[in-house]
Amino acid sequence: KHILVVPGDGIGAEVTTVGKQVLELIAQRFDHDFTYDEALIGHVAIEATGSPLPEETLTKMRSADAILFGAVGHPKYDNDPSAKVRPEQGLLQMRKELGLYANLRPIKLFDELLDASSIKPEILRGADILFFRELTGDVYFGKRERLDDGNTAYDTMIYSKYEVERIVRKAFEAARTRSKRLCSVDKANVLESSRLWREVVQALAPEYPDVSVEHQFIDAAAMLLIKDPKRFDVVVTGNLFGDILTDEASQIAGSMGMLASASVGDSTGVYEPIHGSAHDITGKGLANPLASVLSVALLLDISFGFKAEAQAVIDAVDAVLKAGYRTRDIANTTTSPDKILGTQQMG
Amino acid sequence: KHILVVPGDGIGAEVTTVGKQVLELIAQRFDHDFTYDEALIGHVAIEATGSPLPEETLTKMRSADAILFGAVGHPKYDNDPSAKVRPEQGLLQMRKELGLYANLRPIKLFDELLDASSIKPEILRGADILFFRELTGDVYFGKRERLDDGNTAYDTMIYSKYEVERIVRKAFEAARTRSKRLCSVDKANVLESSRLWREVVQALAPEYPDVSVEHQFIDAAAMLLIKDPKRFDVVVTGNLFGDILTDEASQIAGSMGMLASASVGDSTGVYEPIHGSAHDITGKGLANPLASVLSVALLLDISFGFKAEAQAVIDAVDAVLKAGYRTRDIANTTTSPDKILGTQQMG
Ligand SMILES: CC(C)[C@H](C(=O)O)[C@@H](O)C(=O)O
Ligand SMILES: CC(C)[C@H](C(=O)O)[C@@H](O)C(=O)O
Repeated sequence: KHILVVPGDGIGAEVTTVGKQVLELIAQRFDHDFTYDEALIGHVAIEATGSPLPEETLTKMRSADAILFGAVGHPKYDNDPSAKVRPEQGLLQMRKELGLYANLRPIKLFDELLDASSIKPEILRGADILFFRELTGDVYFGKRERLDDGNTAYDTMIYSKYEVERIVRKAFEAARTRSKRLCSVDKANVLESSRLWREVVQALAPEYPDVSVEHQFIDAAAMLLIKDPKRFDVVVTGNLFGDILTDEASQIAGSMGMLASASVGDSTGVYEPIHGSAHDITGKGLANPLASVLSVALLLDISFGFKAEAQAVIDAVDAVLKAGYRTRDIANTTTSPDKILGTQQMG
Repeated sequence: KHILVVPGDGIGAEVTTVGKQVLELIAQRFDHDFTYDEALIGHVAIEATGSPLPEETLTKMRSADAILFGAVGHPKYDNDPSAKVRPEQGLLQMRKELGLYANLRPIKLFDELLDASSIKPEILRGADILFFRELTGDVYFGKRERLDDGNTAYDTMIYSKYEVERIVRKAFEAARTRSKRLCSVDKANVLESSRLWREVVQALAPEYPDVSVEHQFIDAAAMLLIKDPKRFDVVVTGNLFGDILTDEASQIAGSMGMLASASVGDSTGVYEPIHGSAHDITGKGLANPLASVLSVALLLDISFGFKAEAQAVIDAVDAVLKAGYRTRDIANTTTSPDKILGTQQMG
C-alpha cells in the first residue's frame, strides 16, 4: 500500500508526523508493507511553487492508495480579503479533482474525556453521531464574482439532484448499519437548493423503509446539537451547513483536537483532522496529534479494509487517555502537570 | 403610541397575548396611552387571504409605532418542497418592505437559569452577547431558481458594501457602549461575499479606534460560542450565519423560549421571540411566553425610549424566575411540580 502524506500548513506537519509514526507501527505489528511519499499543498505550496495545489502533488495524489492530510491556511491571507491566490483553493481543488464528494465525520466521545467539554457530562454520555457532509458542491464551488466596480459580491449556492442523491445514499446506507435513524439538515423554508435537497431525501426514503428520516432546519439543528446531541445518529447535510455543524459538534467530542474525518468518493480517500492549521500554536509541539492518529484509523478501515488494525489504533488512543495522559486542549484543572504531554510524547 | 400585534402562526397567538397583557400593565403603571390593532401574517394569512403578507397587514404595519410579532411557519409547507406560496415569504417580505436591516439578539442568561442549559454553569456564568444579524440581504434575498428541468437549484448569496456598512456601523456603535469588543463572523477563506464583508469591517475599524475587532470564520465561531461564550461581546454577521449562530446561542440563555429580538432599520421596529411557531405544542398552553415578554421590553426601550418601563419588565421576569416559577422548557428535575406553569399563568 502506498500512502501519500500531505502535511500542508501550520500544525499539519507536526500532527501528520505522528500519524505516519502510527502507520509505521501498525505496519510492523501487523506485518504490512507500506510505502510513503510526501507532497505540498496550501501556503507552503504557494511559497515553493506559486500554486496552492501543484501539478506534482495532484499526480502523486492520483497514484496513492490513500492520503494522510494535515491542514491548510495562513493568517496572512485571512487578513487580506483581496489576495487572489489562497491556500484554501488548494484544498477545494483537491476535493474536486479527486471527486471526494463524501466527507465522513464521526463524533464520538471517549469516556475519559467526558469532563473536557463545555457541555454537561449527562448531556454527552452516549452521544455518537456520524456526519455525512457533501464536499464537492454547494456555495464552495458555485460561481462567485464582484460586480458594480467591486462594491457588490456574490456566491452561488448550487446543487444538482445527482450530487445530492449520491451523498444521501451513502448516509442511508450507513444509517442501516447503525441505529436506523437519519437526520437531513437544510434550510428548505428559504432556499431553493435546500428544497431540491429535501425532495431528493424524500424521494429516496421509500427505498430504505427500515430507516426513519427526519428533516431539520440548519438553525434548529445548530441548537439541538448542543441541547440534546443524543437525538442524532446519522446526519447528512450540504457542504456549508456541514462545515458549520461538524465544527460545532467538536465540543461533543471534548475538543476539536480529537476529531478525524474521511473524504471519499470516486478515487483515493483523504484522511484528515477537522481542526485547521492553528498558527497560534504551530512549531511549539503543543498540538494534539490524536485527530491525526484517529484519521489513520479511518484510513486503515475505509481505504484498506484493515478493521483489526483500525481498532488497534482506537484502542491505543483509549488506553493512553485511560492512563490519564492529555494534551493541553483536553486537560483540565484536575490533570496532574506531569500527565500533560506535547505532540510527540502523546504520539 | 399605536402598537400593532401580529401573532402569526402556531404558538405566536398564545405568546403575543401575554406580551400584550404586559404592555397593558405597563401602560397602567406608567400612565401611558397605548392603542392596539391586529393583523395577519404567514400560514393564517394564506388561509384567510391567499397571501402570506396581505396588503392590509403591510398598510397597518407602516402606520404603527411598533410591532409586536409572534412567529410564522407551518409543517404543511416544510414537508412540501414544491409549495409555491409559503408562510416564510410573508416574514421575509415584511423585513424587506419595512427596511428592517438590523436584527438585534441579546443573549443574556438570567442567573436563576444557570442550570437550565446543556452547557456547564461555570462556562456560562457572566456570558452576555449582543448579536447584530443583517436581515435584508444575503442568500435570503438573492436570486434563486431551478435549472435543467428542475434537476438543479441555486440561491445567490449577495451583499453590497452599502448593506454591510450600515449594519456593521450599528454593531461598532453598540460595542462602544459595552465592552468595546467586536467580533465579525464570515467565511472569507471561501466566499467572495464574505471577503467583501471583511473588507468593509476593516475599512470602518479606524473610525472606531476604541473598539477592538476580531474576525472569526463561521465554523470556528459555531464552535467557540459553546466552548467559551464569554469571549464574545458584540457579534456582527450576515443573515444566514446570524440565523444559525443565534439559534445555537439560545442554549447560552438556557432555552430558546427566553430569547427576544428587535428588528430595526428605516421605519417601524418589529419585536419578536427568536423561537418559531412550534406546532407540536400549539394550543396546549405550554409555550414559554417570556421571549415575547422580553420582546416587549426591547420594544419599550428601542422604539419608545421608555427605559424605566423596559427595566420594569425585565425585573418582573427576574422576580418570577427567582420565585422559582418555570415553564416546562426551563424547568429541571429539581423544580417542584407546582411551580411549573402554563403560558397564561407564567404571564
Ligand atoms: C479551510 C476551509 C476551506 C475548510 C472548509 O470550509 O471546508 C475547513 O474549514 C474544513 O472544514 O475542512
Ligand atoms: C422562519 C425563518 C425564515 C426565519 C429566518 O430564517 O430568518 C427564522 O428562523 C428567524 O430566525 O427569524
